[in-house]
Amino acid sequence: MRRNQARKRRSGCPIGIALDLIGDPWSLLVVRDLMFKNASTFNDFLMAGEGIATNVLSDRLARLEASGIVEKKRDTADTRRYIYRLTERGIDLAPLMVELVLWSANYEKTDAPPEVVRAMRDDRANFLAQVRQAWANSRRSASTRITAGR
Amino acid sequence: MRRNQARKRRSGCPIGIALDLIGDPWSLLVVRDLMFKNASTFNDFLMAGEGIATNVLSDRLARLEASGIVEKKRDTADTRRYIYRLTERGIDLAPLMVELVLWSANYEKTDAPPEVVRAMRDDRANFLAQVRQAWANSRRSASTRITAGR
Repeated sequence: MRRNQARKRRSGCPIGIALDLIGDPWSLLVVRDLMFKNASTFNDFLMAGEGIATNVLSDRLARLEASGIVEKKRDTADTRRYIYRLTERGIDLAPLMVELVLWSANYEKTDAPPEVVRAMRDDRANFLAQVRQAWANSRRSASTRITAGR
Repeated sequence: MRRNQARKRRSGCPIGIALDLIGDPWSLLVVRDLMFKNASTFNDFLMAGEGIATNVLSDRLARLEASGIVEKKRDTADTRRYIYRLTERGIDLAPLMVELVLWSANYEKTDAPPEVVRAMRDDRANFLAQVRQAWANSRRSASTRITAGR
């Protein structure tokens, strides 16, 4: 899983490296939509609410794919369309997303449902296990209708 | 601690809100330097290795201060100089930083010392308690030589 070794790095610092890969707001919003909002198509991301521009979205999806965080496959139901999924490396961002939510919900007024925030905070391991299970299930069900391709 | 309520938001999503505040790479690198590298002056951040430009650094410090993540005080030893510290809200980003490190160290080749990564992964609560203790100690010792001011 040692991708991007040739990529230009500002430093060997693990935080710096992570931020080179995912440290822009739009990338993590796309990851959020894939992880928590069942988004899987270009249109799903466009509709997600923050008003991402199509060119920015195209760029971020390409970068996330190049970083091995997202994979795209052709939708067999509509072969002009791609289905985007988180890879293992992508779903492994779930703990980071949980910390973003907890910090934000603690200090800012957010729309986060209190019961979800509570589940993240008080039963973090279980919450993360559920997120991963949902991801595994959606990959399994998707594999019957998707064929690899670009 | 409900700051920035009037700030323009893309959404009420807690992840979106967190990313509005800290979702650019330079901001989190400054937080990293404050949290883990004993950086506290403008020059410390400049020297941190990633080559941040002075105008970008000024902007990010001002933003982090406006978001209540960083506070600055005049250095009594040299009143032309400011000392920057993480606030409570700032040190509460430690769990997020730990997840960034773990994800990065898991998937990329980094300079992270293996024993630190192990401590973060296998004894997360204790690691976080130590980070918080170091922060509390540095605030206590700093309060004897710093006076508030702008």
